[in-house]
Amino acid sequence: MEVYRYEKNPLITPMDVTPHKEGFEVIGAFNAGIASYNGEVIMLLRVAERPISPDPACVLAPVYNVEQRDLTLIELRLDDERYDFSDPRVIRNKTQTGSFQYLTSISYLRIARSRDGHNFTVDADPFLYPSESLETFGIEDPRITQIGDTYYIYYSAVSPVGIGESMVSTTDFVEVTRHGMIFGPDNKDVLIFPEKVNGKYYALHRPTTKSTGNPEMWIAESDNLLYWGNHKHLIGLRAGMWDCGRMGGGCVPIKTERGWLELYHGATPEHRYCMGAVLLDLDDPSKVLARSRNPILEPEAAYEKQGFFGDVVFACGTLVEGDVVKMYYGVADTSMAACELSLLAILDSLETV
Amino acid sequence: MEVYRYEKNPLITPMDVTPHKEGFEVIGAFNAGIASYNGEVIMLLRVAERPISPDPACVLAPVYNVEQRDLTLIELRLDDERYDFSDPRVIRNKTQTGSFQYLTSISYLRIARSRDGHNFTVDADPFLYPSESLETFGIEDPRITQIGDTYYIYYSAVSPVGIGESMVSTTDFVEVTRHGMIFGPDNKDVLIFPEKVNGKYYALHRPTTKSTGNPEMWIAESDNLLYWGNHKHLIGLRAGMWDCGRMGGGCVPIKTERGWLELYHGATPEHRYCMGAVLLDLDDPSKVLARSRNPILEPEAAYEKQGFFGDVVFACGTLVEGDVVKMYYGVADTSMAACELSLLAILDSLETV
Repeated sequence: MEVYRYEKNPLITPMDVTPHKEGFEVIGAFNAGIASYNGEVIMLLRVAERPISPDPACVLAPVYNVEQRDLTLIELRLDDERYDFSDPRVIRNKTQTGSFQYLTSISYLRIARSRDGHNFTVDADPFLYPSESLETFGIEDPRITQIGDTYYIYYSAVSPVGIGESMVSTTDFVEVTRHGMIFGPDNKDVLIFPEKVNGKYYALHRPTTKSTGNPEMWIAESDNLLYWGNHKHLIGLRAGMWDCGRMGGGCVPIKTERGWLELYHGATPEHRYCMGAVLLDLDDPSKVLARSRNPILEPEAAYEKQGFFGDVVFACGTLVEGDVVKMYYGVADTSMAACELSLLAILDSLETV
Repeated sequence: MEVYRYEKNPLITPMDVTPHKEGFEVIGAFNAGIASYNGEVIMLLRVAERPISPDPACVLAPVYNVEQRDLTLIELRLDDERYDFSDPRVIRNKTQTGSFQYLTSISYLRIARSRDGHNFTVDADPFLYPSESLETFGIEDPRITQIGDTYYIYYSAVSPVGIGESMVSTTDFVEVTRHGMIFGPDNKDVLIFPEKVNGKYYALHRPTTKSTGNPEMWIAESDNLLYWGNHKHLIGLRAGMWDCGRMGGGCVPIKTERGWLELYHGATPEHRYCMGAVLLDLDDPSKVLARSRNPILEPEAAYEKQGFFGDVVFACGTLVEGDVVKMYYGVADTSMAACELSLLAILDSLETV
């Protein structure tokens, strides 16, 4: 697959973002939702900030306190044997079964804007910040679906009771209406289709199950975007391939003559994240038509291979102009990059399933 | 709490149920949904049947095959070191992270009927049987909400991709309309309120999360019973108490003058399942008013303490007549029993939270 990576990559790095609070450092500006608004490309960044610990023997875990409307910092000693600090993203309690007890950073959403799609400036303030009990560990990995003049923004809401997907909407990227949690925990990587199909809205989603099963892609339907049902399993992991470990929707599905094109991420058990594609039936998106054998994008550039969590390309949005797919993507859980691909080349690369 | 257990308990045991298929034995007739229809008490049993293995060194795991529309039996050797057979309900693959790979039995739904609520006869045939890819490991623990003349029946749908909650409806307990999966995986213990509250339907549900969090009770809303959203965490585990290990909704919420009364199950980490109660605001069921300090029912009778999986009382439905709550409940994952409690006594026992 021919990929044109922008010369200015990475387009945004943590150094381009001022911390929102004293005593914090920005460690990530990545996995942005993408929209076109008022002549600008909007990159709705996930900004991750880490409290700077004055004591090198301690880690500070940030938690949003709903009553105080401010962050509380939990101090944990690195030599405390109850905790596992080996994953830089999370703090695991060895006496508990979950995959984490605290996160090492707090994520929120912040806008970067561009007239040309290459040169971005970052807004001075957060656009959307944790605000309620289901968001106390942060809000992550936004996607944006434009329907008419309304932009629906949905994101992972992380808290001690799990990870679900919550939604807000805006018409001007200033005022925000909250719609609550639209997919209960554990769920991530929701992608709402940009129009109704046969009278129904559709969304891809990615439950993580504890009983049995793998992190795979599901589809649901709705008549108002707020309430979702008729959940169906859509596509699963493929042994020995680039998407054998985990997967989830990536970008808002693109309507093409051949079907709905979903650019999704897949990873190996070693956490190498690539982007691939799946084609869904135009009239019934729960029908899978074709899928990438090989990734359409894989971590190759230095900024994709090295960073806070390396070997990751993770796209949350595209802008499509004719045959050109401008795909904006997070790299190494650190920065934002972009590339261009041919829509026809992606479609032609898919293998019928 | 004063509890009147029926003299005929257990009301239904596996011996009262003929296997639906040659070569199978009924090991459970339990966790029934309850409804009043046409002058009869309907007990919609979860019947669990186990394939009889001709070889004592092997276990047969039943899986519904959608293409063949029949069960396939997977033969597993008890000395196969990849598998863990220590839990009688499931077969775990030690090389995988999930809590099971196969179940040891297949569950489906079957009707028992009674004119007096004490003496039941079991229908000759299954009422609802696994029929699609999300049900290949069986359908479990039904609940029934009557709204007008329609009975909404929802149950855990178990398959290799996880456990979700699916729904059907009927007006005559003969013809069934399917509504698909209403809560995606992992989710169980859904309880739909019997009427709209302030223009919305509500349901309790019980996600099981892998990331962080515990098996606790959530609430969601809907405008058509099929699509659900605005998920909120409702109540959680209480350290050191009878509901410190896991919990979930039990019976369809009962409307009282003081609020919506939900009889729910809680268990210890040692899997001792009791029933307790929580009171929710009449006008906004996402507000918790009061809760049981002590269980209203705990495993004490021999049929509650001993069985396929002992020390379990697990109610899925009640019939309420004036102050009398007739609570039907599964015992020891084996049989069905019933008891009567005073509604006022339950309400008076609750502690304000």
